Amino acid sequence: MRIAVVAPSCRLSEVAAAKVEAIVMARGDADLAIHSQCFLSDGHFAGSNAQRLAALRDVMADATVNAVWFARGGYGSNRIAEAALADLPDAAREKTYLGYSDAGFLLAGFHKAGLCVAHGPMVQDVIRAEGEAAVGRSLDWLVRRDEASLEPDLAGPAMAFNLTVLSSLLGTPLEPDFNGAELLVEDVAEHLYRIDRSMFHLARSASVARVRAIRLGRISDVPDNDPVWNGDAEAIVRDWCNRAGIRFGGSADIGHDACNRVVPFPLAAS
Amino acid sequence: MRIAVVAPSCRLSEVAAAKVEAIVMARGDADLAIHSQCFLSDGHFAGSNAQRLAALRDVMADATVNAVWFARGGYGSNRIAEAALADLPDAAREKTYLGYSDAGFLLAGFHKAGLCVAHGPMVQDVIRAEGEAAVGRSLDWLVRRDEASLEPDLAGPAMAFNLTVLSSLLGTPLEPDFNGAELLVEDVAEHLYRIDRSMFHLARSASVARVRAIRLGRISDVPDNDPVWNGDAEAIVRDWCNRAGIRFGGSADIGHDACNRVVPFPLAAS
Repeated sequence: MRIAVVAPSCRLSEVAAAKVEAIVMARGDADLAIHSQCFLSDGHFAGSNAQRLAALRDVMADATVNAVWFARGGYGSNRIAEAALADLPDAAREKTYLGYSDAGFLLAGFHKAGLCVAHGPMVQDVIRAEGEAAVGRSLDWLVRRDEASLEPDLAGPAMAFNLTVLSSLLGTPLEPDFNGAELLVEDVAEHLYRIDRSMFHLARSASVARVRAIRLGRISDVPDNDPVWNGDAEAIVRDWCNRAGIRFGGSADIGHDACNRVVPFPLAAS
Repeated sequence: MRIAVVAPSCRLSEVAAAKVEAIVMARGDADLAIHSQCFLSDGHFAGSNAQRLAALRDVMADATVNAVWFARGGYGSNRIAEAALADLPDAAREKTYLGYSDAGFLLAGFHKAGLCVAHGPMVQDVIRAEGEAAVGRSLDWLVRRDEASLEPDLAGPAMAFNLTVLSSLLGTPLEPDFNGAELLVEDVAEHLYRIDRSMFHLARSASVARVRAIRLGRISDVPDNDPVWNGDAEAIVRDWCNRAGIRFGGSADIGHDACNRVVPFPLAAS
């Protein structure tokens, strides 16, 4: 089992990389190949668009790589997602892609293109408290499809996204077909008025009308709203689901934290 | 000329209201009717959804009102915009609606419904430095269609929006037909990575593909990006226009400031 790590968004820390390399070595059930691109820096990003794209396409085309694990989020994978899918080599279709947060742009577009993707912890998560458990969950899923890694209430096709990222890809070429899928959303460091605005966008978008349900992951590190916001994130999601005639399916065990569980997307026809 | 003021988003300050009342009194060319709803408070909003909607529908249905001037932005007009357009009375079609920022949700939906809308300074802007000039520009437009109030480079159909608000209404029932229009965008207090993400969303949305051009208003009060962002807002807009094959039309004299000029939307068929 060979797992390649690339950073389509922001730069991976050397500390996180070394910790995860040690974890994988100790497990002994996989080879981890952290691409040197992960440590490049170009302003906000882990290298220029061209550098990030080249590294991603490298590992996608490499037939010896069984899984591509995104190093971390931040911002920027949308700038290369469409180009990554051009002239897709066969080898790209024979592997799993795993990440979340900003990597949601890739999950969406790759899923739409028929690739096998899953939403779950990334390499950089190892530096969180209890972060070893988070990366272990992803490794258990990548290496042996361990069902203990999965979000516990999955029943039928499901997709998971950072809510703000999802809002930002509606209507673009990256948008997948949501019909019949349960949509799990989480977010971090967004004011509740922004959560409300993103939920308006999601629930009132024509392309989201026929999801099976929306479930709410954790909305963490919420900055203070000024003036104070009446109610909580669950009330927001319930309200917009209710207005749009979408079933609210309850909570989801995903979020920007060490407890984040894996959500494999359904295999879509290309 | 009778101008009604309502607050579909956040609460108007009494200080701003009194200043604008005095300005209108001194001009002597209009009656200003500031609805008592403007001073209600319900958490983040100027009253509950029901209270804000009732006030808005009141003034829309009032045949003695020639113009509806939105008090201020903030957040929340998207929560009542669709309901405001239900069973539209004839009187609603015979007046002008003016605002910007969060009021962009209303501008979009009202324009789509065939109403006469314009993007321009609001009542609360009077408390900015040079704010009297800003509200005077809106009053000059509402009262006598003074062309000196207009954005100076308008040539053909144009629409103006806060970029984040515009991104949040793409694909919803509020989204108007952008084909052939020049799109002017501005924003405030958003990190450059967020501006980039919103521009990705705008430029890569299928419904925006046939705009005549995108022009960039002011992007102000930008919080520091960490890590530092290479380039400025104009480089971002040029880049996404270029990728999407949309003409970049240069700068636009709009923004969250006292220099904000008026952009009347084209009259659309309902």
